Amino acid sequence: MNRFYYLCEHIYYRQKMVQIQFPDGAVRSYEKGITALGIAKSISEGLAKKVLAASVNGEVYDATRPIQQDSALKLLTWDDADGKNTFWHSSAHLLAEAVEMQFPGAKFWVGPALEKGFYYDIDLGDKTIKEEDVLSLEKKMNELAKQSNAYIRKEMSKAEAIAYFTEKKDEYKLDLLSGLEDGSITFYTQGAFTDLCRGPHIPNTGFIKAIKITNIAGAFWKGDEKNKMLTRVYGITFPNQKELDEYLLLLEEAKKRDHRKLGKELGIYTMDDDVGPGLPLWMPNGTIIIEELENLAKQTEEAAGYKRVVTPHIAKESMYIKSGHLPYYQDSMFPPMELDGTKYYLKAMNCPHHHKIFEAEPKSYKDMPLRLAEYGTCYRYEQSGELFGLMRVRCLHMNDAHIYCTKEQFAQEFRAVNEMYLKYFKIFGIDKYVMRLSLHDPKKLGQKYINEPELWLETEAMVRAVLIETGTPFVEVQDEGAFYGPKIDVQIWSIIGREFTLATNQVDFAQGKRFNLSFTNKDNEPETPLIIHRAPLGTHERFIGFLLEHYAGKFPVWLAPMQVKILPISDKFMPYAATVLAQFKKAGVRVEIDDRNEKIGKKIRDTEIMKVPYMLVIGEKEVAENKLSVRRQGKGDMGMLDTAAFLAQVVEEIAERRAPAE
Amino acid sequence: MNRFYYLCEHIYYRQKMVQIQFPDGAVRSYEKGITALGIAKSISEGLAKKVLAASVNGEVYDATRPIQQDSALKLLTWDDADGKNTFWHSSAHLLAEAVEMQFPGAKFWVGPALEKGFYYDIDLGDKTIKEEDVLSLEKKMNELAKQSNAYIRKEMSKAEAIAYFTEKKDEYKLDLLSGLEDGSITFYTQGAFTDLCRGPHIPNTGFIKAIKITNIAGAFWKGDEKNKMLTRVYGITFPNQKELDEYLLLLEEAKKRDHRKLGKELGIYTMDDDVGPGLPLWMPNGTIIIEELENLAKQTEEAAGYKRVVTPHIAKESMYIKSGHLPYYQDSMFPPMELDGTKYYLKAMNCPHHHKIFEAEPKSYKDMPLRLAEYGTCYRYEQSGELFGLMRVRCLHMNDAHIYCTKEQFAQEFRAVNEMYLKYFKIFGIDKYVMRLSLHDPKKLGQKYINEPELWLETEAMVRAVLIETGTPFVEVQDEGAFYGPKIDVQIWSIIGREFTLATNQVDFAQGKRFNLSFTNKDNEPETPLIIHRAPLGTHERFIGFLLEHYAGKFPVWLAPMQVKILPISDKFMPYAATVLAQFKKAGVRVEIDDRNEKIGKKIRDTEIMKVPYMLVIGEKEVAENKLSVRRQGKGDMGMLDTAAFLAQVVEEIAERRAPAE
Repeated sequence: MNRFYYLCEHIYYRQKMVQIQFPDGAVRSYEKGITALGIAKSISEGLAKKVLAASVNGEVYDATRPIQQDSALKLLTWDDADGKNTFWHSSAHLLAEAVEMQFPGAKFWVGPALEKGFYYDIDLGDKTIKEEDVLSLEKKMNELAKQSNAYIRKEMSKAEAIAYFTEKKDEYKLDLLSGLEDGSITFYTQGAFTDLCRGPHIPNTGFIKAIKITNIAGAFWKGDEKNKMLTRVYGITFPNQKELDEYLLLLEEAKKRDHRKLGKELGIYTMDDDVGPGLPLWMPNGTIIIEELENLAKQTEEAAGYKRVVTPHIAKESMYIKSGHLPYYQDSMFPPMELDGTKYYLKAMNCPHHHKIFEAEPKSYKDMPLRLAEYGTCYRYEQSGELFGLMRVRCLHMNDAHIYCTKEQFAQEFRAVNEMYLKYFKIFGIDKYVMRLSLHDPKKLGQKYINEPELWLETEAMVRAVLIETGTPFVEVQDEGAFYGPKIDVQIWSIIGREFTLATNQVDFAQGKRFNLSFTNKDNEPETPLIIHRAPLGTHERFIGFLLEHYAGKFPVWLAPMQVKILPISDKFMPYAATVLAQFKKAGVRVEIDDRNEKIGKKIRDTEIMKVPYMLVIGEKEVAENKLSVRRQGKGDMGMLDTAAFLAQVVEEIAERRAPAE
Repeated sequence: MNRFYYLCEHIYYRQKMVQIQFPDGAVRSYEKGITALGIAKSISEGLAKKVLAASVNGEVYDATRPIQQDSALKLLTWDDADGKNTFWHSSAHLLAEAVEMQFPGAKFWVGPALEKGFYYDIDLGDKTIKEEDVLSLEKKMNELAKQSNAYIRKEMSKAEAIAYFTEKKDEYKLDLLSGLEDGSITFYTQGAFTDLCRGPHIPNTGFIKAIKITNIAGAFWKGDEKNKMLTRVYGITFPNQKELDEYLLLLEEAKKRDHRKLGKELGIYTMDDDVGPGLPLWMPNGTIIIEELENLAKQTEEAAGYKRVVTPHIAKESMYIKSGHLPYYQDSMFPPMELDGTKYYLKAMNCPHHHKIFEAEPKSYKDMPLRLAEYGTCYRYEQSGELFGLMRVRCLHMNDAHIYCTKEQFAQEFRAVNEMYLKYFKIFGIDKYVMRLSLHDPKKLGQKYINEPELWLETEAMVRAVLIETGTPFVEVQDEGAFYGPKIDVQIWSIIGREFTLATNQVDFAQGKRFNLSFTNKDNEPETPLIIHRAPLGTHERFIGFLLEHYAGKFPVWLAPMQVKILPISDKFMPYAATVLAQFKKAGVRVEIDDRNEKIGKKIRDTEIMKVPYMLVIGEKEVAENKLSVRRQGKGDMGMLDTAAFLAQVVEEIAERRAPAE
């Protein structure tokens, strides 16, 4: 029992026990009215210091709110999404308290937590928050945080609440109140600030150790441009200074690495109004990266026994009715074109076309596994508001393939696919990744999931076994499989720690039957193949967007649009530069001469900006000694090197697709 | 004057002269009423024997029809398309005469000339033409031809004509007559056969020296399936037996080389009802050929300083209004998709997308010429009846590029494009080709042609100069240029002499302005670039269709989907076969082992059918001596060869893209 209980909750206290079940299944008895914080203290003081809130029977509670019935309990800390969410929402109240002190009469609209941080929309009357105010607001918030003021919950009648805000002349909260039911209204108070709020909140402001106001923006009240413009103050807070520092560094780094900014600066892609939103045009430098990625995929897939196909970008309506994409997936497809009385659709996936190639010639078990690969371009409808650079687009060049195999071959095929993922992660220096294995729910067989109970268990077990055996990090998620089989979503993290969903990897029992695909098995009987859908490099759009951020545009030499730039100090050295150019070109290196009439310093600076990995400076000495002065982008002078030896080194670096040495 | 004149043309004859202008510009006087045949005889008897018809002031005349006014005259022989056309139309009448003699009471609908040969649609009542009838019909036609019966033209009044066919109870000709104006009706008679016919015809049946009935088919009257089914008799005739023999050989060869037949047998492509007509799916073997062609194009274009781009397959309506393709080209485009209130179209050409990439970054004269290349996939609407295998499709993978250049650079750029064509012709063994240079008509400037009189003359002269200088065979065609500049259509002939239109090569003054493209010239002024559209390898669809016929499926080694097949005589030799496989694979050769439990004879036969260039037979002797018995597809045994030496030879043959040794 803690003091907040007596302050906030004047309910009748009966001496009874409640049964609390913990996430590990253990059940313990506590006095009715115990709080999550009390339970944490009963375990250890150390734990109690970390508890921000609690999940009680699936609902997020203040850690200080009494528990009146038997409950499943999960203590929420900074490591839980709901813990962070509560922390940042409480931080918004802290911000409001500081603003109210510095800007008396300020009125507050709403202050939600975000994926990262929080904001509060505020009516400052005729005042504005200036740059110097930001610092003093942060200072004030720090002072208030140090006071460790408790967040105190109070249930209010609607009449009381209206009376409170009427006296305060706060039309915003009165507007909010008008939409709430009597009996559901709570106030939260910390220090001198009281807010209408559903909660929950952290125990006290002392948990907030590091504070940053990140942005001041304008926002129309209720998002309607006819309403008054409020001041939206964005902030972020952390339970320690180190995490804030890391976050600010990440923010700065992410800004520098923004794929839209780099995409423009490096001539990777462009968008055009007459082409349409979400439809990138790949410029020459971007196309070089595309070709290199496709070469990698083609080499890797050829070595793994894949065969390549090329299929049209459209098909008749009947194809997608057969596949089941119509009508279920229709909202994600482009609208039809009506031709000769038939509807044609842009393909949103390559599978049906590949199934048709499987079907084109009779197959026997000797033809299995058949692995059909295509960098197929699909078109998907995303709402224009959801489009974002290369990350959310309407045109997707997909590293697609479908593996048709027997049940006996499945585990081996799946293992090979998994190995291909790991191989790629290594090439691209992706150290952090998780496979998210989505399983079926046996209760929903025949409804949400195709009714093949044994195949489900069998393939799930095989997939799990491969992941364990190969030491691949993975999490299992119940009841999130695809209709036609278990699936794996691949999450990767860029070098600065941002998370990306790269690809989906799916097992498919259903499409083979829908398309009447079959092969003659060893018993001379027709059998339906299992199908694996896989796309380890995802789409060019998302993957190149990821790589731009991951490498900050400093691509490894094999991927760099321009690999070597020759910088003669003056025109006098052009003949020598030309012989160097010829040697590198002959070896297949992407190379050019900066023949502008500019000082060498400017040539180096411009080449640095374009992130060309190697610069070869050529002057008197280099010509005399038949050598090159080599500079590495971002690293500086590597000294004077022998031309042939350096060329051999570059060719090897490219052939091995070596990661940039950090 | 000849006798036909008095028979056919009862008009008042006045002693006057007509001025006849010949194609070389020479003008000579003849008596009014002279015939083309008379004029030919006045030149030489040899010439007269060749004259089939004549072009009189642009209209095709019987060679025996009197000329009553001053005329531009061209004598038409077998070498002229209109000469052949007249020859085959007259042959249709000869066929009809023979049919009427063998099937009395037969009624005749229409009997036109075709691109090759002719047909006649005939109502045989309850009779049918059997196989033995074909021979006796050919015999009868030969007899009648030897009689050298003149084709005699007679003008008829409509009443006379109706009376004639009413008596003959020929409802078909009466139906034709109902649509004709009085005063425009002529009959032609040769031997015992008279037909309602506009003509013209050859002088007499004696010109027809070689005759073949090629097919008997059914055809609904007027093409309407509700009407009676008539018998359509197809035939072809020649002025000598040699040409007929050659034609029949070609026909047989073309049948064996039919790209649809080979495309299926060799697993090149397939069509599917659920995908749609004219939309080929490229199977693994076809995709290998696509990749090899693209590699060739990429290598060639990279060496020629092209940059590659990748663009979406769709764009907004506004793009095609800007380019002018809408509404003028709308019928050849797929219908729109309506999305968020905007119409999107599948691209029917890549140019607008490339223009947008040109526009994306500011350009100066230093960036010119800019050559943007893409194997872009376009979609064009062709009526389903016009679709034909890979030759007429709705999906086109185009070897496209656009060259943006200054006027000063144009000649050099155009020469380089021309050289690229010649290089490709050499690689693919295309010995016969013609460039058809289409020019503007100065009278139509500002209407049919963009009003840039000087640019027209300048670029036409430059194009002509390049063609002459490089010794490229070409013909000039007046008044057939594109709206925006002169164009070249490239005609090629396959090894068996069939003609294909491969590609169009166009100069463009207009699109640059429409898209507001500009670069800063040396005087620091904005200037519009000239644009060259070029696609030397045409589309994958048509070019691979052509190559299938050209090579009869026996691709040169570098293009062959499977290059080497290892045929162990028994399982005992599998380990040795596996080491050979590994050596060839490592060298990048497409190779596999025929490990079936079959006799070596069957293995060889099956590999021959799949047209794999090299077969390596492995038995006791080969293993003992560490050698290979090599067979060349279609040529047989090449003897026992050293493995490493043979591998080096194959690798060289591939690297050089060597043509198959005939």
